[in-house]
Amino acid sequence: MESNMIFVPMILAVLGLIFTAIKASWVKKQDPGNEKMQSISKAIKEGALAFLNAEYRLLAIFILIASVALGTISYFVATTHWMIIIAFVFGGFFSALAGNVGMRIATEANSRTTQAARTSLPQALKVSFGGGTVMGLGVAGLAVLGLSLFFFIFVKMFVTGGVAFYDEMTIALETLAGFSLGAESIALFARVGGGIYTKAADVGADLVGKVEAGIPEDDPRNPATIADNVGDNVGDVAGMGADLFGSYVATVLASMVLGNYLIKDMSTTSQFTDAFSNMGPILLPIVIAGVGIVASIIGTFLVKISNNDAKESQVQKALDTGNWTAIVLTLFSSYFLIKWMLPATMHMHFFGEGYKNISSMNVFWAACIGLAVGALISAVTAYYTSLGKKPVMDIVKNSSTGAATNIIAGLSVGMKSTFFSVLLFAAAIYGSYELAGFYGVALAASAMMATTGMQLAIDAFGPIADNAGGVAEMSELDPEVRERTDILDSVGNTTAAVGKGFAIASAALTALALFAAYVTFTGIDGINIFRADVLAMLFVGGMIPVVFSALAMESVGKAAMEMVQEVRRQFREIPGIMEGTGKPEYAKCVDISTQAALREMILPGLITIITPIIIGLVFGAEPLGGYMAGVCVSGVMWAIFQNNAGGAWDNAKKSFEAGVMIDGTMTYKGSEAHKAAVTGDTVGDPFKDTSGPSMNILIKLTCLVGLVIAPILGDHAIEGAATNQNDIQVEMNVQGSDLSEATIVYTTSINGETTTKEKTFKGSQEEVKAQLAAFEESAKSDDGKVIKEIESVSIKKK
Amino acid sequence: MESNMIFVPMILAVLGLIFTAIKASWVKKQDPGNEKMQSISKAIKEGALAFLNAEYRLLAIFILIASVALGTISYFVATTHWMIIIAFVFGGFFSALAGNVGMRIATEANSRTTQAARTSLPQALKVSFGGGTVMGLGVAGLAVLGLSLFFFIFVKMFVTGGVAFYDEMTIALETLAGFSLGAESIALFARVGGGIYTKAADVGADLVGKVEAGIPEDDPRNPATIADNVGDNVGDVAGMGADLFGSYVATVLASMVLGNYLIKDMSTTSQFTDAFSNMGPILLPIVIAGVGIVASIIGTFLVKISNNDAKESQVQKALDTGNWTAIVLTLFSSYFLIKWMLPATMHMHFFGEGYKNISSMNVFWAACIGLAVGALISAVTAYYTSLGKKPVMDIVKNSSTGAATNIIAGLSVGMKSTFFSVLLFAAAIYGSYELAGFYGVALAASAMMATTGMQLAIDAFGPIADNAGGVAEMSELDPEVRERTDILDSVGNTTAAVGKGFAIASAALTALALFAAYVTFTGIDGINIFRADVLAMLFVGGMIPVVFSALAMESVGKAAMEMVQEVRRQFREIPGIMEGTGKPEYAKCVDISTQAALREMILPGLITIITPIIIGLVFGAEPLGGYMAGVCVSGVMWAIFQNNAGGAWDNAKKSFEAGVMIDGTMTYKGSEAHKAAVTGDTVGDPFKDTSGPSMNILIKLTCLVGLVIAPILGDHAIEGAATNQNDIQVEMNVQGSDLSEATIVYTTSINGETTTKEKTFKGSQEEVKAQLAAFEESAKSDDGKVIKEIESVSIKKK
Repeated sequence: MESNMIFVPMILAVLGLIFTAIKASWVKKQDPGNEKMQSISKAIKEGALAFLNAEYRLLAIFILIASVALGTISYFVATTHWMIIIAFVFGGFFSALAGNVGMRIATEANSRTTQAARTSLPQALKVSFGGGTVMGLGVAGLAVLGLSLFFFIFVKMFVTGGVAFYDEMTIALETLAGFSLGAESIALFARVGGGIYTKAADVGADLVGKVEAGIPEDDPRNPATIADNVGDNVGDVAGMGADLFGSYVATVLASMVLGNYLIKDMSTTSQFTDAFSNMGPILLPIVIAGVGIVASIIGTFLVKISNNDAKESQVQKALDTGNWTAIVLTLFSSYFLIKWMLPATMHMHFFGEGYKNISSMNVFWAACIGLAVGALISAVTAYYTSLGKKPVMDIVKNSSTGAATNIIAGLSVGMKSTFFSVLLFAAAIYGSYELAGFYGVALAASAMMATTGMQLAIDAFGPIADNAGGVAEMSELDPEVRERTDILDSVGNTTAAVGKGFAIASAALTALALFAAYVTFTGIDGINIFRADVLAMLFVGGMIPVVFSALAMESVGKAAMEMVQEVRRQFREIPGIMEGTGKPEYAKCVDISTQAALREMILPGLITIITPIIIGLVFGAEPLGGYMAGVCVSGVMWAIFQNNAGGAWDNAKKSFEAGVMIDGTMTYKGSEAHKAAVTGDTVGDPFKDTSGPSMNILIKLTCLVGLVIAPILGDHAIEGAATNQNDIQVEMNVQGSDLSEATIVYTTSINGETTTKEKTFKGSQEEVKAQLAAFEESAKSDDGKVIKEIESVSIKKK
Repeated sequence: MESNMIFVPMILAVLGLIFTAIKASWVKKQDPGNEKMQSISKAIKEGALAFLNAEYRLLAIFILIASVALGTISYFVATTHWMIIIAFVFGGFFSALAGNVGMRIATEANSRTTQAARTSLPQALKVSFGGGTVMGLGVAGLAVLGLSLFFFIFVKMFVTGGVAFYDEMTIALETLAGFSLGAESIALFARVGGGIYTKAADVGADLVGKVEAGIPEDDPRNPATIADNVGDNVGDVAGMGADLFGSYVATVLASMVLGNYLIKDMSTTSQFTDAFSNMGPILLPIVIAGVGIVASIIGTFLVKISNNDAKESQVQKALDTGNWTAIVLTLFSSYFLIKWMLPATMHMHFFGEGYKNISSMNVFWAACIGLAVGALISAVTAYYTSLGKKPVMDIVKNSSTGAATNIIAGLSVGMKSTFFSVLLFAAAIYGSYELAGFYGVALAASAMMATTGMQLAIDAFGPIADNAGGVAEMSELDPEVRERTDILDSVGNTTAAVGKGFAIASAALTALALFAAYVTFTGIDGINIFRADVLAMLFVGGMIPVVFSALAMESVGKAAMEMVQEVRRQFREIPGIMEGTGKPEYAKCVDISTQAALREMILPGLITIITPIIIGLVFGAEPLGGYMAGVCVSGVMWAIFQNNAGGAWDNAKKSFEAGVMIDGTMTYKGSEAHKAAVTGDTVGDPFKDTSGPSMNILIKLTCLVGLVIAPILGDHAIEGAATNQNDIQVEMNVQGSDLSEATIVYTTSINGETTTKEKTFKGSQEEVKAQLAAFEESAKSDDGKVIKEIESVSIKKK
């Protein structure tokens, strides 16, 4: 079976990729500047590619091992197909490709931006944002193309479209989950590895260069300066690209799974049909994603300024205009798509409340909640991390009494920032669920992620501008050039902070949608933390993000120490290095960062992937659900805390550059208070660029791993035994109350090992009766043998 | 009804209090030293009492408001009695009394310890540990006395001992929960207020005194030095005393509640009876607590050394001997008490698994698990915070590259330390539950807490020794005296860190027991995080400890800044202060700390108490359960993280005092690396002494508030409707098995008060059918109205 509708996102994705190619060739055609600039840009590019290639070699091994594991699973578990391996490999490949494309263009765009800044600011913005656009739309295009292509293939392979629609589609989507798993696994390593790389180089360069030797940022005499600029690319560009690629794919996938579940709900009375081969709710999220690509393209055209003397606020305004245009266009289209692709009234099951009939417009409102909460969380993030606002000024004030009080103030800003973020997030869960169940939650996340192309373009333009400034400094160009790139860089810092708020909000909602998809896949009734094993795993899950962050930070510390020793050695041993006559050995520093990042990313990566597998296999589906919830709750807190503390420290330090008033005295760079602020910023660096952003991937990947192994844990694989009829058959007769509830305890025997399970049916009496009957039917295998032995039945009044 | 058994803990508690009084008078009889020492000691005592009195005035207002609120609840909710107010007020009063007694003796013991140290170290240990003993056994005695007395009264008032035993006992225990709530509320304010006080003074004294003016710790020229020493008492003595008093009471209470639930389980077939007025499982935890007092008294006799040249390790060994003797004695007695007071085989309900028959020895093994895990978590804590161990050495090493790397290293040590602690904790939940359900979890916590008297004696001796050192320094005594008190102080630092590990482990288990008690009180089926509202509240709960910590830290920051300004002002304005000819205004600094602590403790305190009430009333019982779980999971992580990071930083700094090898160079006090380590320690101070320890109380109090409002949220108050036929009628049809069993849950309404009961019928299918029919007939009153309303029926295969 098939629907032409699936070609829509495919075509839109290809459109996005064509636009990407055109934009990329335009950027490459720009003047790359003088020889010195080109050589610096080339060094950065080579360093970055050297890292990526080394990283890919390592990841190829991982992909191989994971593929063997997946193959083993699919061999033993009937409901998983070996095609999951293909999907997995392609997911990984696409993710790496997206990162690679983005990084290549970013390293091309930096010196071109510098060169453009020699003539005008508008042109510099055009080039740097052009580079960002290539990254953004490349990621979005590849994600939608990959997803829609594989979905098309798997539907063709597995779905016949009869009464077994739900089960067949489940297999198709479970196989598709491999694509998402591949993408997210690569993203994890890219984020963690890139994060370690960038901060090791940055901290190393700052500690010896700025603090000890007293030379400015990006000074060519600093041996770690090339590594530092490479780091901006592998961390902020390739790492972030892979991260958002993963989020994007995971969100759409989770929405599709829940769409399938919605179809099942709607098929309780009679088989659901619609004009999209009966899979409107499944196709909707990916079509919205496709439309988001077009909206993003339109948005990018609006990002421009005309005034050469423009300030930060005008650049910011240009970005905002483009961003909001894309968002509004997407939302507008979503309204019509939802109206068109979903039935006007949907019969949806609400956990513990039974079936409700809801309007398809509820889904639209859930999407609006997603966008509103995404924007509000970004605003909260901006408040806590922006120059001049109270939180940053608090840190500035506390810098006057030394590094210790600066650190305490920064930590508490980060911690306090969880308050509104989490309340908003909780409201988003509650509101979108109330409107349209977990499908609503997933669509809220999808709406947030729909304009990923535009979001990422904005995010990626920052590091390009930052690099452009580095090139200007290292090439010893006119200060005017640096001033122009600094304007772009400063805007980039703000958008980076806001982008991080957005990324964590969308990752958290995505994780929830995956969590819901997990519960539906395993067929458990829910996750009850009053069970001791579930509760224990909730705690274990809560611990993982903390330990993960520690490992990531420690890795940065270790790598930075190596870098510090190396830079000190070069300052000591290379004659004339401080006078600018001796040439520093940049490559040695690049190499240290590369080796350290690769070595250190393995342990946290493996913990993330292996722990849920062990827990699932040893304790079962429900405790694994508890673990996932623990990872999500704790991960969200630590992500917000670390990102915002890091961002606030950074801007507290920056405040001194223009001078700030502390207790009536103007205080500037070089003061004791500024030194304290530099210490705070150094602590904040791994927070905001390594461990903090890794949390996003940690929570998504944990839920994805759960989703992929769900078929092994759930009821899917029960083998038949024994009799033709269940011992207990209960006729219920509940009078005088509308609602009732029945719980069945049953045992299943697999290869002689018996496990006991519980299933509760809720709803009106008629619904419960129907579910009971369906269960008794499903308790028999194809040859009529009883495979689920009913041990007890209990009926309760509601 | 009554049982003589309740007099056993009462008598043992009185015994403990008599011992306390004797010990206190012994301490007071010791030589308080010369006039200068006495005047310093007096200043500390006055400052401490001034703070406590100011605190009590504020808390009296809180108690009044809370009493009115409780009165309102008891007026509207039939199942709560106004006696809860009396219990609440007494709980608060006892808690405050325990803190007050402890602090008075601690401030008496300090100069006496100094004086003793002038002659010998064994005598100094005897005096300082004598002071700790008064604190420890005073707390334990008051706790057990208060609990057993009120339990005795409430059993007399509410429990008639008929078939309604469970319901009547529930009312008695719900009223008793007021005692625990009062104790824990005071503990919260004492911990937070004390924590803010002590760290504001400490940070203030260190930043200006040690860092800026370069004078040593406890130098009499430092205006904040008295405040600093007062802080040790109000924070480490009064705060910790109130904390452990609260834990102790809460643990025993939760165990009693779950004991009542166990009795209900065992009464499903026929009413449970035993030789203790049918309440053996309820009395057991409080009897164990009573025995723990005696064991602690015996233990204290073993804490002594004979060698005047003893080192830290010998002092530590003496403390360990006493501690382990108390633990082994308690465990040994518990074995016989469990054998005696519990039925050999217990019929216990396991959530989702149905009824199981377990041996009473399982409860003993659960208690062993509690003790083992407590000891292991303490060992983990000791590893992560001890001098010379890898984590602390890592921080030391990272100090050589400056404050920033020191901070990063300290943060990651704290974060990594969650790994084993949480795994152990999860194992404790899982293991003790598997053995004996939530009763087992509660008994594991009770076993941990049974030797609170001894634990607290060890904990309280540290600050006394610390103060004694301060007195020696300020009185300018012979350096030999300071060396002796330093040995005691150093041991005190280790025991403090270990004690914190123990405190968090016991608090977390207590919270779980309270959580389980909450679920049984509300009568909900469990807490399913697949419900969106429960999940949303899980996130909100996870955020509270983070924000709480931020507020506490920020308060310390604010108060410390005020202190810094004041100390700087005094250094500037008082002539001759640095030369020792001008006298600093100590009282001003004491006053600043007092005011700041009182002002700042209010907001976090109110958040803790009010948030669960709002969530319970707005969203209901199950979401509140999600909130509790969120607070516990997140609170445990942040407690471990903050305590251990703080402890590790502290000892990293201390490492420099004796000199450490960094990269082949011996590095000492005064080096750049040491300065970096001082910065780390300053950051760690509020971590380990303010926000970290507050987490314990936060999680316990959250669960206690839930428990107290449980009657409003639960199903207790459902009014019976009078129809002519039962709503549920079940026809059973069990095939292929000879025997079957049916359980009916039904409610009866008498005078508008509804109680829920369970009845199980056993036999062949025909027999069960006949019994069912007879029950349905008996469920009607003479006029044909239904008086026993069937709520649910369950049928089970035998």
